[in-house]
Amino acid sequence: MPQKDTALLTKSPLAPDQFPALAEISGVELRIARARYKEWDRCDLTFAELCEGTSVAGVTTSNICCSTEVEMTRENLKKGTARALVVNAGNSNAFTGFRGREAVELIIGKMAAHLGCAAEEVYVSSTGVIGVPLPMDKADAGIDAVITAAPCSWEEAAATIATTDTFPKGAGASAVIGGKTVHLSAIIKGSGMIAPDMATMLGYIFTDAAIEPAFLQALLTNATRKSFNCITVDSDTSTSDTVLVFATGKAGNAVLGSFDDPGADAFAAALDDVCLRLAHLVVRDGEGASKFIEIAVTGAVSNESARRIGMAVANSPLVKTAIAGEDANWGRVVMAVGKAGEPADRDRLAIRFADKWVAQAGLAADSYDEAPVAEHLKGSEISIGVDLGMGNGRATVWTCDLTHGYISINADYRS
Amino acid sequence: MPQKDTALLTKSPLAPDQFPALAEISGVELRIARARYKEWDRCDLTFAELCEGTSVAGVTTSNICCSTEVEMTRENLKKGTARALVVNAGNSNAFTGFRGREAVELIIGKMAAHLGCAAEEVYVSSTGVIGVPLPMDKADAGIDAVITAAPCSWEEAAATIATTDTFPKGAGASAVIGGKTVHLSAIIKGSGMIAPDMATMLGYIFTDAAIEPAFLQALLTNATRKSFNCITVDSDTSTSDTVLVFATGKAGNAVLGSFDDPGADAFAAALDDVCLRLAHLVVRDGEGASKFIEIAVTGAVSNESARRIGMAVANSPLVKTAIAGEDANWGRVVMAVGKAGEPADRDRLAIRFADKWVAQAGLAADSYDEAPVAEHLKGSEISIGVDLGMGNGRATVWTCDLTHGYISINADYRS
Repeated sequence: MPQKDTALLTKSPLAPDQFPALAEISGVELRIARARYKEWDRCDLTFAELCEGTSVAGVTTSNICCSTEVEMTRENLKKGTARALVVNAGNSNAFTGFRGREAVELIIGKMAAHLGCAAEEVYVSSTGVIGVPLPMDKADAGIDAVITAAPCSWEEAAATIATTDTFPKGAGASAVIGGKTVHLSAIIKGSGMIAPDMATMLGYIFTDAAIEPAFLQALLTNATRKSFNCITVDSDTSTSDTVLVFATGKAGNAVLGSFDDPGADAFAAALDDVCLRLAHLVVRDGEGASKFIEIAVTGAVSNESARRIGMAVANSPLVKTAIAGEDANWGRVVMAVGKAGEPADRDRLAIRFADKWVAQAGLAADSYDEAPVAEHLKGSEISIGVDLGMGNGRATVWTCDLTHGYISINADYRS
Repeated sequence: MPQKDTALLTKSPLAPDQFPALAEISGVELRIARARYKEWDRCDLTFAELCEGTSVAGVTTSNICCSTEVEMTRENLKKGTARALVVNAGNSNAFTGFRGREAVELIIGKMAAHLGCAAEEVYVSSTGVIGVPLPMDKADAGIDAVITAAPCSWEEAAATIATTDTFPKGAGASAVIGGKTVHLSAIIKGSGMIAPDMATMLGYIFTDAAIEPAFLQALLTNATRKSFNCITVDSDTSTSDTVLVFATGKAGNAVLGSFDDPGADAFAAALDDVCLRLAHLVVRDGEGASKFIEIAVTGAVSNESARRIGMAVANSPLVKTAIAGEDANWGRVVMAVGKAGEPADRDRLAIRFADKWVAQAGLAADSYDEAPVAEHLKGSEISIGVDLGMGNGRATVWTCDLTHGYISINADYRS
């Protein structure tokens, strides 16, 4: 495993015990190298080589100040095929103008020459500090090194795309399409600056399924709406957020083009599952997190209204610190619902922790007993329910608590 | 000075040296008492008696889950006259349904009987924990005690309305209207759950000027837009936010009814000044604050767009922790501008700290020297400038940094 660069990054208490066993994806080869974008001795450049005929779909940040990498990714997605993914860690290359663009063009040019592919088939992402141009010389030497490196594992690639992450993150699934089993293996990085609006963080899903780019895009957009767009660590939206899905087609299934094709539902379910598990992993590595919080909103006027109310609760510093303090301070949940700017009626509002209703019809529940709620809050998996009593809209969002750890990490990180 | 109830509340390093000397306002008498709404030995009930003929105007929270007190205040403001203000500290009485309403009606009934006034002329505010009905017996005894208490000072009243505040807050001004000098004396409380949308916190401005309620309301609404609505501590909007201005008319000036009346501009300027100073005091007592941050946005497509961009920067946990860490991490300012959802062009954006431009035209400024910026960030008064290069919209907003102190206060406060 590549070595981490700072003592701050002790493993999150919410991390899974180990990295999952992920299937090899035929048509994908992973390699890593040291470009030394920061003063650290770890691999920080990842290269995924993709076979000819690989379809690609993607979602990117809504942040207006997005990086050159994000702009070029959006442009490339129009073509819909991919041969290479290159990920630089330690420098986001965002807000670096023409200087940053030169480095990305260098990487693309070298990689296209190496693979004999079109420039539009090379995808580049970068993550790390904003405002410092990606150094041309380091990128140049890094690409030379990674091209000749030995293939590596999913876990090594997941660790190499990481920055302030405290553990490598991956998820896998499979589905059966017309008798053929297809596999999905995915890696993601992210722990701060997490409040996606279109996508979030850097996430890469690889599958050997054969699937048309337009349909792949529709499935990814739909999965994102229920996963990456329903998590938040700190309400801050990154300038580099990107999630890409690559489909090599090596599984030999009949090409999926729409939901009418046999197996399309199964593949969509597997993709949804992988996206949701990746999203949860990011929350579990939320900077300073000690508790994983699920907020289920029901009874809103629409699903989107429910999501917005859930995110208002999930982003409230006062709710997040109350959970950190194991304090059943449901009044702060009331406050956060009330500030969301969505339709709500104070006197129909109900709040629960776990399965205990603490407030109903605009005041404390008669049955409310704080003891079991206090017990629930001592755990690391917290469940909050909000019922608006207005309609049938529902959404579930996920976040983590706000602790001294977040302050320590972010008042020191850089420069 | 009333005693504080917890060792957490050491005085903010951003607090002024002392409470200002505020003019007595003819027609206003202040009294305080111990209702013991919490387990503390300090005064927590404030009563301002207002002479007959006092005009009143007010702004209240936009939080949908507002308290009974806020609802009744809005109702009372239609009448436009006031005889009493009662403020309960330690219990916000919000989200307490009919139980909370009974306590407020008790207070109003007793006070109206005492003064021989209409119920609609008694204003009640409450601040503190949400969801616990204001205890009837304590309110009852507290009103009896405060009616018979000796008059007190502005500073004592300011300390009595406080909850998690670390210092009492007041501001004063005067203006000349047709040869008559009028005075404004004001107190405010607030340090967390501060992200006003219509008004914020509990703030009370008293003046001896004679002014019609409708014009007073117009002036307060305008002043609020530039002061209370331009500050944030933690992006959370209180359920109880209220700012009221009372005008006793005892100064003997010709009644102000519009901007056409001589002296109206002078009075408006004095009111603006008091509101801005009160708003700044709240930021200076922001929970855990170690730095006072001014964010001036220029070149936006409109003033409101500039305000929203400023608030996106002011509410960003990553910007606030960078300032706490004295880190010239202007990339986080770029990120926050980009996520604001307002018109912006990355390649026209410029950022400064103090008077040093750190980024211009979409990348780091050629002239950028970190040393003077690092020096500026070591101070306690931080100035950030954002120029969008789009239009003539401008706004200035104020916030504080995000420190371990905020976590300590809010992971422990209650229950």
